[in-house]
Amino acid sequence: MAIEWSGLSPELLVRLDREAGQPLRAQLEGSLREAIRDGRLRGGERLPSSRALARELGVSRGMVQECYGQLLAEGYLTSRSGSATRVADITERAASGTPVTPATATARLPADRGLIADFRVGVPDLSSFPRADWAWAVRQACGEIASADLGYGDPRGSAVLREVLAGYLRRVRAADAGSERMIISTGFAQGINLVLRALIRERGVSCVAFEDPGYGSAESDETVRATLAMGLRAVHVPVDEEGLVVSALAASGAQAVVVTPAHQSPTGVVLSAARRHALLAWARRQGGYVIEDDYDSEFRYDKEPVGALQGLAPDHVFLVGTASKALAPAVRLGWVQAPAALAGAVAGEKEMSDRGSCALDQLALATLLTSGRYDRHLRRMRAVYAGRRAALVEAFATHSPQLRLTGLAAGFHAVAPLPASADETAVIAAARERRVGLYGIGDYRAIADPAAPPALVIGFGNVSERAIGPAIAAIADLLRA
Amino acid sequence: MAIEWSGLSPELLVRLDREAGQPLRAQLEGSLREAIRDGRLRGGERLPSSRALARELGVSRGMVQECYGQLLAEGYLTSRSGSATRVADITERAASGTPVTPATATARLPADRGLIADFRVGVPDLSSFPRADWAWAVRQACGEIASADLGYGDPRGSAVLREVLAGYLRRVRAADAGSERMIISTGFAQGINLVLRALIRERGVSCVAFEDPGYGSAESDETVRATLAMGLRAVHVPVDEEGLVVSALAASGAQAVVVTPAHQSPTGVVLSAARRHALLAWARRQGGYVIEDDYDSEFRYDKEPVGALQGLAPDHVFLVGTASKALAPAVRLGWVQAPAALAGAVAGEKEMSDRGSCALDQLALATLLTSGRYDRHLRRMRAVYAGRRAALVEAFATHSPQLRLTGLAAGFHAVAPLPASADETAVIAAARERRVGLYGIGDYRAIADPAAPPALVIGFGNVSERAIGPAIAAIADLLRA
Repeated sequence: MAIEWSGLSPELLVRLDREAGQPLRAQLEGSLREAIRDGRLRGGERLPSSRALARELGVSRGMVQECYGQLLAEGYLTSRSGSATRVADITERAASGTPVTPATATARLPADRGLIADFRVGVPDLSSFPRADWAWAVRQACGEIASADLGYGDPRGSAVLREVLAGYLRRVRAADAGSERMIISTGFAQGINLVLRALIRERGVSCVAFEDPGYGSAESDETVRATLAMGLRAVHVPVDEEGLVVSALAASGAQAVVVTPAHQSPTGVVLSAARRHALLAWARRQGGYVIEDDYDSEFRYDKEPVGALQGLAPDHVFLVGTASKALAPAVRLGWVQAPAALAGAVAGEKEMSDRGSCALDQLALATLLTSGRYDRHLRRMRAVYAGRRAALVEAFATHSPQLRLTGLAAGFHAVAPLPASADETAVIAAARERRVGLYGIGDYRAIADPAAPPALVIGFGNVSERAIGPAIAAIADLLRA
Repeated sequence: MAIEWSGLSPELLVRLDREAGQPLRAQLEGSLREAIRDGRLRGGERLPSSRALARELGVSRGMVQECYGQLLAEGYLTSRSGSATRVADITERAASGTPVTPATATARLPADRGLIADFRVGVPDLSSFPRADWAWAVRQACGEIASADLGYGDPRGSAVLREVLAGYLRRVRAADAGSERMIISTGFAQGINLVLRALIRERGVSCVAFEDPGYGSAESDETVRATLAMGLRAVHVPVDEEGLVVSALAASGAQAVVVTPAHQSPTGVVLSAARRHALLAWARRQGGYVIEDDYDSEFRYDKEPVGALQGLAPDHVFLVGTASKALAPAVRLGWVQAPAALAGAVAGEKEMSDRGSCALDQLALATLLTSGRYDRHLRRMRAVYAGRRAALVEAFATHSPQLRLTGLAAGFHAVAPLPASADETAVIAAARERRVGLYGIGDYRAIADPAAPPALVIGFGNVSERAIGPAIAAIADLLRA
């Protein structure tokens, strides 16, 4: 007895190929996403129960539930308690307005090698950079590149890398990615600059919203500084336990907003499904733009990464990514997946800015991706970071059980709220005297606020696992005050 | 009998060390330059005759004359016919005002591989890119780089590369270079953008002059486009057989000027000594800035390269260089040697722009320079380009003896004036039908001028030597019209 589903049999919507290399779970999820995106499943339509679909497809019910859960988190589905799961309304794809994406917490001070542990945020494990792989990939690129490609080329970047990356982002980030809308940058900082300049020029954007806490102030962050230097007004929108407070965004007058939906920087909150919908509704209503800072989505521990917001509304969202976290900042490669109507403008900004990124490095990154070495490195690093994360959790449980670490679902930083009476700056200074590098959430606020709850943002990307316990033990008393 | 020279014996001013590896000629020239720069030889002082100095130092008179000639061309010395050679007045080093440097002629259209010869300008021989050297250098860099240097570093760039490059520019370009005033860019386009933004912010510059013919118009050139996009006004100053017409610059209201003193782009004229002085006098008088586009100075055929203008007035001149011509555009590395007072501002712009260039590539370039492989490649390329240059000269002598090629002293392009009655665009179109890629000087004019004398700008950097003769033979009749 076949189930009915928007007039189509499930087989038409969901193609499961048991001979294909791809796991059934990924196939099911991808097929549903595709069907929702291209309108075969329309907003409001009711999905079959997980039990019915599982029976129909010959898979386990748990697998279907996992898929539904993932698509709920990403905003493709909606669900109210007690009622059936339905397709979310994502079909609108108009364009005109302004977006901005929120900033990534990154190293703000030179590393201090005299520290026993430096919990600096935003730095991956530099000692794990795959040196041999990179040298190999550059050698391959030097051998394979056509002479003509050593000249000034397409300012968007290498056609090979754009194609490979688009496929990667579709697969890993559930992005609506296409090589013709992709611009290769030298990292997140350049990527957002190109996007903002294109929005100023093409859409008359004059005001951009940032998450708060988020990138911080012009003093602490070069992206905020660059934004102001372009003549843009920056407004700051609060973040709560569901992520960006979209109602405050709507009231801010901003035409674009910079967000970190997968793992808010620095709080670690995942933008809730309701907020994802509210944010995209804002963008459609206002003709606004969302700049999605997808800075550390490669590393998620409890379940698979939340898909990119961009996949839900590719005409309103710029997906801005970087290889800085997966490889190292030294590589200086990133990408912008732009709305079709604005990709040319972003490419024009790239051309004016530097005429395109290094062709050899681009080909090297493409080679890492296609050879499987990139994924192998990420798998290795997930294990490394998971070990450090566990060590951090254990160290806090042992030495500071009163503090609840949050924001640990992804990436390589956590937030440790301090007692309300604690002085963030004093704790950091005292820890430094004990040769432990700590960083306060104050650096991530747009405006210094002595009344704001004190907290630490603890990066564990570039700290060795065995240093974590002793370092937390050494400062545990400071965290009580 | 020792000669007198500003109260100092020549030995104090000129240290010749016969045991040193450096040729005596280079030592003499360097010592004189140093003495003039640091004020031991003051403006107006009379130099000993070449005969007297040669005798005193025990070198040939011809060698001293060559040195004097070189320093005259660079503007360190002055000479009026019939009177003695004197030290030029370069001692002032004030700062405040505005500079801009002129644009490099570069590839404006995608390469057409169906052509028998493509005389595109500004592209080096891409098939000679030292692929093995680059792969080797990146491997060395991957092996040697400290893990800490794989993170976000000094936005100015690698300390190693800045040190090596400063030494190189002192040695090869007679630049007044220092690593602390050096900012590594991703090429000329980014370099000039950083300089212009710093001048807007720090010096309130609002109007920039370009050479005409030079970079051309906003339509043809991304640097002019970027300049206008920053909100700057661009004015255009004519170029004659001595280079930039400085009197016209002074009347233009510009606070900064972009120039190509070593080999004007596209005319190939070398900025005369008198104009060098007039230009620097303008800068000092107006508090103006000169942006020196040192795009192809590595390749000079008749004598050694004219030293950089920057060496004469490091507080007024930004030296903007690139590895795109010596290696290939694909490498995307360049540099800015900034006045001390503005180096921090340029570094700040670099940080906002992209947080610094790729550390591995920077270290690779430093490795090429220190290993001698960079120089070896340049020597090889000088021979390659000299061969193509000779083939071009011979082809014109054979097939179009009525046309006089000019601008051939350096680089890898020449100018071929067409008969006054010729239609530049029609000649180019007809040549393309015969599968020969030609480019007109019209692309380099700020404003289209049908009355301007027609000419071709003939790049021979990326054309094989044996293709040149047949290509010119195939179009010779078009050049007569």
